[in-house]
Amino acid sequence: MEKQELLYEGKAKKIYATDQENILWLEYKDDATAFNGEKKSSIAGKKVLNNEISSLLFEVLHKENVPTHFVERLSNYEQLVKKVSIIPLEVVVRNVIAGSLAKRLGVEEGTKTEQPIVELYYKDDALGDPLITDEHALFLKAASWDELAYIKFLARRVNEILLPYFLERDIKLVDFKLEFGKTEDGTIILADEVSPDTCRFWDIHTNEKLDKDVFRRDLGGLTDAYEEILKRIGGKSHV
Amino acid sequence: MEKQELLYEGKAKKIYATDQENILWLEYKDDATAFNGEKKSSIAGKKVLNNEISSLLFEVLHKENVPTHFVERLSNYEQLVKKVSIIPLEVVVRNVIAGSLAKRLGVEEGTKTEQPIVELYYKDDALGDPLITDEHALFLKAASWDELAYIKFLARRVNEILLPYFLERDIKLVDFKLEFGKTEDGTIILADEVSPDTCRFWDIHTNEKLDKDVFRRDLGGLTDAYEEILKRIGGKSHV
Ligand SMILES: Nc1ncnc2c1ncn2[C@@H]1O[C@H](COP(=O)(O)OP(=O)(O)OP(=O)(O)O)[C@@H](O)[C@H]1O
Ligand SMILES: Nc1ncnc2c1ncn2[C@@H]1O[C@H](COP(=O)(O)OP(=O)(O)OP(=O)(O)O)[C@@H](O)[C@H]1O
Ligand SMILES: [Mg+2]
Ligand SMILES: [Mg+2]
Repeated sequence: MEKQELLYEGKAKKIYATDQENILWLEYKDDATAFNGEKKSSIAGKKVLNNEISSLLFEVLHKENVPTHFVERLSNYEQLVKKVSIIPLEVVVRNVIAGSLAKRLGVEEGTKTEQPIVELYYKDDALGDPLITDEHALFLKAASWDELAYIKFLARRVNEILLPYFLERDIKLVDFKLEFGKTEDGTIILADEVSPDTCRFWDIHTNEKLDKDVFRRDLGGLTDAYEEILKRIGGKSHV
Repeated sequence: MEKQELLYEGKAKKIYATDQENILWLEYKDDATAFNGEKKSSIAGKKVLNNEISSLLFEVLHKENVPTHFVERLSNYEQLVKKVSIIPLEVVVRNVIAGSLAKRLGVEEGTKTEQPIVELYYKDDALGDPLITDEHALFLKAASWDELAYIKFLARRVNEILLPYFLERDIKLVDFKLEFGKTEDGTIILADEVSPDTCRFWDIHTNEKLDKDVFRRDLGGLTDAYEEILKRIGGKSHV
């Protein structure tokens, strides 16, 4: 496989074309951003850790028949993925109330939900990725009714797989953000990444944060937290 | 019927007990507030206009078998209503995108929706009445799943009645906010008010605003706008 022109540079990843029409070359970056880009830093080692963790988790999901864009891990910080047209929704699943939802609802961070809560945020940086309802998503033509149902089904399925997976490793999967995309034949698959940048992980005993909140809230060394996650899911650190 | 002690004073209305257990005495106020109380004023005549308009619209809804709290108009600015325990949701129905939703979705004010959009806002002044999803409402125990379905059904029904009603009177019913409550026997009925304070009304020809946006955006005389609404729905002004 040959790496070709840069198609898109985001805050956390670069995406390149390859010599194969439907395959993209995904490169993780060390950049960390928070609060819609207001807080910025470069954290040596983050790209390697996210690439390892995301590759590992996509393999876990593959084994459970969740369709994902992941093809293969190429190097310490690169992977091949299937090309999709991204559905402009951030799909968030919450097992415990934290972050923006704790503020929105006036609920203490750490409150458990009886059922996982699935939310949609409209992927639009200029608007600050606002919370939207299903009816808003339809109005925006972000997805059809059936597509929304399927996306939410897949999001809950991912939670049913990862919640016990992390629990066995002494990690509370508090919440996570997924992105879905459509392949050329119209199939919807899980895309983007599943990493401590996009999940909230709390140590089951101490509630220590092992995710990007360490950066958002200045709680210590980010790579230490990410290394801990990688260690607990059985990965090897290449940092 | 006897007016007894003041039970609650809100921004737009006062609510008194009566000598009848399940009946409340509702008094409209001339106070106008906007932006969660940041902008305030007293506008002579508003209470009379809102009482007239709301009484008239509740009667229109009664005729179409929508269950409401309205019992009778008592005076220029007073009415009797059934006592309910208010469900802490503001139910908004939108036929045209305006106000906060235009900003949230980055859509031009005035854009039509293909279907009416029904939204829930959590009635909590300290939180700024945030937009929430059905799952949030369940989590907050604001209402059960069945209650949400019924409330939304009633909200759409109100729109089906009022949209053509206003259209015949050369008024575009852009959006409106409803509150529902539970009577002692558990029945859910429409409560609060339906007035230019809680609806967006635009003249069908000129798009002139004939509602509280006149106050929010300093567009001229508020009572002139409300008088125009009252005139078009066939009411007599007692201002
Ligand atoms: N398989 C895929 N095919 C095409 N695009 C993808 C795929 N997986 C992820 N993407 C997109 O590539 C970009 C990844 O870059 P990154 O995560 O750095 O973006 P970002 O800074 O979060 O910005 P944004 O997500 O707002 O575009 C995202 O836009 C993501 O939606
Ligand atoms: N039939 C009813 N029984 C009991 N309470 C009612 C009834 N109808 C309306 N209410 C409540 O009475 C209050 C009306 O006052 P007003 O509209 O001035 O309140 P507000 O300033 O909008 O404040 P808020 O709605 O946030 O309490 C509201 O709290 C409303 O929910
Ligand atoms: Mg991203
Ligand atoms: Mg009110």
